[in-house]
Order: sequence, then structure tokens, then C-alpha cells
Amino acid sequence: MTRTELIQQIKTKQSYLCVGLDTDIEKIPAHLQSTKNAIPDFNKAIIDATKDHCVAYKINTAFYESLGVKGWDILEETVNYIPSTHLKIADAKRGDIGNTSAQYAKTFFVTYKFDAVTVAPYMGEDSIRPFLDYTDKFTIVLGLTSNKGANDFEYLKTSDDKFFYEKIIETISKWGAPENLMFVVGATQTKELENIRKIIPGNFLLIPGVGAQGGSLADVSKYGMNKDCGLLVNASRAIIFASGKEDFEEAAAKIAKEYHEEMKGYLAFVF
Amino acid sequence: MTRTELIQQIKTKQSYLCVGLDTDIEKIPAHLQSTKNAIPDFNKAIIDATKDHCVAYKINTAFYESLGVKGWDILEETVNYIPSTHLKIADAKRGDIGNTSAQYAKTFFVTYKFDAVTVAPYMGEDSIRPFLDYTDKFTIVLGLTSNKGANDFEYLKTSDDKFFYEKIIETISKWGAPENLMFVVGATQTKELENIRKIIPGNFLLIPGVGAQGGSLADVSKYGMNKDCGLLVNASRAIIFASGKEDFEEAAAKIAKEYHEEMKGYLAFVF
Repeated sequence: MTRTELIQQIKTKQSYLCVGLDTDIEKIPAHLQSTKNAIPDFNKAIIDATKDHCVAYKINTAFYESLGVKGWDILEETVNYIPSTHLKIADAKRGDIGNTSAQYAKTFFVTYKFDAVTVAPYMGEDSIRPFLDYTDKFTIVLGLTSNKGANDFEYLKTSDDKFFYEKIIETISKWGAPENLMFVVGATQTKELENIRKIIPGNFLLIPGVGAQGGSLADVSKYGMNKDCGLLVNASRAIIFASGKEDFEEAAAKIAKEYHEEMKGYLAFVF
Repeated sequence: MTRTELIQQIKTKQSYLCVGLDTDIEKIPAHLQSTKNAIPDFNKAIIDATKDHCVAYKINTAFYESLGVKGWDILEETVNYIPSTHLKIADAKRGDIGNTSAQYAKTFFVTYKFDAVTVAPYMGEDSIRPFLDYTDKFTIVLGLTSNKGANDFEYLKTSDDKFFYEKIIETISKWGAPENLMFVVGATQTKELENIRKIIPGNFLLIPGVGAQGGSLADVSKYGMNKDCGLLVNASRAIIFASGKEDFEEAAAKIAKEYHEEMKGYLAFVF
């Protein structure tokens, strides 16, 4: 899916919601837990219940990897079930020396056919370049994350009085274009969003941290939107575990719809 | 394997060599490539050929992930084949918000029973803590990497005139102990090794970059060793792809033995 196609989906649906499939076997409804295909069945039901309200799905690979080999079967079954109208994001946070990053890029873009993958910036250009070389895919680099640990290093000041995260975004933005490069900015970091938009007016931002982590959709939209919307706001636990009972599909649809309705309001200022 | 047991292995064998199983199907000998179990057969042959010369094996997960589900079967078969006398390292460079890092820690320490896993530092304490909570395992955090991209961010200066990588090592060293925390320092970074040893005199360093990447074992040993040896020096391609022909086992054993012999000389100054 290209940037133009993504923007078209956002316009058509009036939504920039991404649903995060952080599917933890211990948190899915009890009546499913003991069934043979509990996780794929749960994921498919969540996708069916939410697809009219979102434009992207984000699969957090950790929750699948921890299940061993069968987890990767489930990951593949899940990604193949996501409609082609939706951006498929692997939230994998990979990054290594060039020849190894090339293997990771192949894993997510070729083997599993994702549209986008999240990448860690620490190791610099040759660790990110192999992802960006897939110019028809999206490399989503960690900019300023939503967690408490963001304060440890991302907010360190550099010798030219910038935050470390600013140098990361500034530098890496030159290695790609809005057509193949996005950044992760946590929804809990709204006070920095205006500043980030000055550095990268054109790139899409993947924004986790709304919902369980406490970020505000209103603030994120106010400070982070650009003329193409430019946002994918992710909610995971708040949607997929909205109910732990047999009504989990209705509960997930209800929460996704609430985000969707709120987003319609904010998009009215853009399109 | 505990730190004490690792040091004992190093003393007994007079080696601190780690063999990296970055097994690329396109680079293994032609006569194996078309066989059914090419990669596990290759890995087992390499392990048999090198185990007397090394104390650790490092599995670079990217090369297995890129094969899809069957890659994880191969990874599991390989890690189970490594003798219990050798430290089993997952070179995975993971790191995410706390609840996700907990899933990654479970993946490598519990599901696949590795002794150690490499972790990326960017997202700070709560992204690393779930790994360190396994106090009988090793968390190996990226300090100063071997690649060209290390210059992009790791060597940025902070406002208190330190390199960013120094702040990373300094800060993270307080979150763990030498018993459960190591750092990655590239063999191409020997000019910084003395400095790094001042910050972390006690922690083991995992040193990639000898061999194909051009680092010097002599310099690494001179500037990086501590009173317990404190080094695991990794070579991957230089050993496992020493020959692309039917004599690959002999060729791998020969190169591993050369490293081993050189290491015996340097260890004479320590034990």
C-alpha cells in the first residue's frame, strides 16, 4: 500500500485508527482460551469487528514469538487475514548491522508480506538502510516512545542543545522520504508534537499510547496532524481486551467506533 | 550458565571464542544447499567442528526469521544441539515497552532456553528491566557497535561532553550486575575499549567484528580484558564460511583453532 493509497483510505473511511493485535493468550476471553485455534480465532473475530473503523492493523511480534514456532504460524495466518484495504504493520523494532538488517527486512516485507515494519535507530544508517531500500514499503523508525524509559536516553541533551530524539528524527528523515519513512511518537508525548512537526512536516507518525497508556486522542490530533492527516493512532489493549467475556467482539467494535467517531470530528478540519 | 561457570569454561578451555551461527542458506556449501535439512545439518557440523575451540555460540535470529516458520524450527533444533558446556546467545537485539519486552524475554529465556540475549537500549529502563529480571540469565545490551552506523548516533556528544554510548553504558550498568549484564562492544572500536573498561571494569563484553568486519583480536584482548578475562569474542562468517566446499568442517575447525591458539597466548597474562 502506497502513501497515496493510505491517505485515500483515511479520507474514505474518515478514520486514522490502527488496531494493535497484541494478543496475549492469558487475556483473551476464557471461553476461547482452551479451544484449538484460540489466538487466530480471536484475531479474526477482532479484525471482523473493527475493520470498518480502522485503516491499519499492527501486529506486535513479541506476543507471537513467545509462543515458539506455532506463534509464527499464527502470525502468518493473522496477517493473511487482514484485508488488503488496511495497512499491515509489523511492530518488531528490529535493527542490526547491514547484512543482518537486510535479513530482517526480507522477513517482514517479503516472507510475511507486511506493508510496514518498526525499526530501532541506535545502530545508525546501515542498520536502517536495508529497510528503506524497499521503497514501496514503510520503514517506521522509533522517534520518541510512549514509555517512562523514554526519559532515560531519548530526552538526553546533545552538545548542541537538542534532545537526542530530535537528532535521531532530524538525521534519519534525510535518509528516506515521506513515501517510505514514518516515525513512532508516543501519544504520551504531545508536548513535543508541535516541535516534531517542525522537523518532519510531511512524514506519517505512528502514535501508540492512546488507551491503556493514557495518551489523549484530542491532543495528538491537534498537535500532530498535517495536511494529509499524517497520523496513524494505535490502540491495542483498550480495544482488543475491552471485554474479557463472550461479548468481546461487540465490546471491541464499540470502542473502535468511539475512536472512529472522535476522529471524524478532527478530520473535518483537514479534508 | 552462571558467570562463575562461564569463567571456569574459559579457564579450562583457554578460549573466549564465540562462534556466530549467522547461517545464510545462500552461503552454505553447494553440496548441502539442496538437501532436506541443509541448515540444521550445516549448523550441527559446524558445532561439532568448533566446540573444542569455543565457549559460546551466538545465533543471529534474523537469518532464521527470514525463512519463515521453518526457520524457527531450525533455530530450536540448533540451540538444542549446542552442548550445555557452551553459553547460548540469542543475537536478537530486541527492546520495547515493558509488557512487550517481557514477552521477548520469555521468548528467548524460557521458550528457546537461551542463556543470553542481545537487547537494544534506545527505549530505556522499562524496556530492559524485564530481561534483567531473569537474574540467572545474561542481558547483553548494545554499547558501542562495530558497524559504520555507530558514528551516526552512538558517537554523538551529550551536553556534559560524553559520547552518547558512554551515557548508555554508564546508566545501564547500574541497572544490573556483572552476574546478569554484559555489553556489546564492536572489535572495530578498540580505541574506546580502555575508556569502556573504566566505566564497567567487571562486566563481560561481547565483541563482534573480528574477522569479516576487520577487528583485531590482539587489540581487543589487550585493551578489553579484565581479571576474569571478561571477553567473549565472536567470529561468524570468518569461521562458518571459511570454505564453501565439502571441506567446510575442516576449514571452520582450522580457523577456530587459530583464534583459540592466539587466545591461549593472551590468557596467559590473566589466569
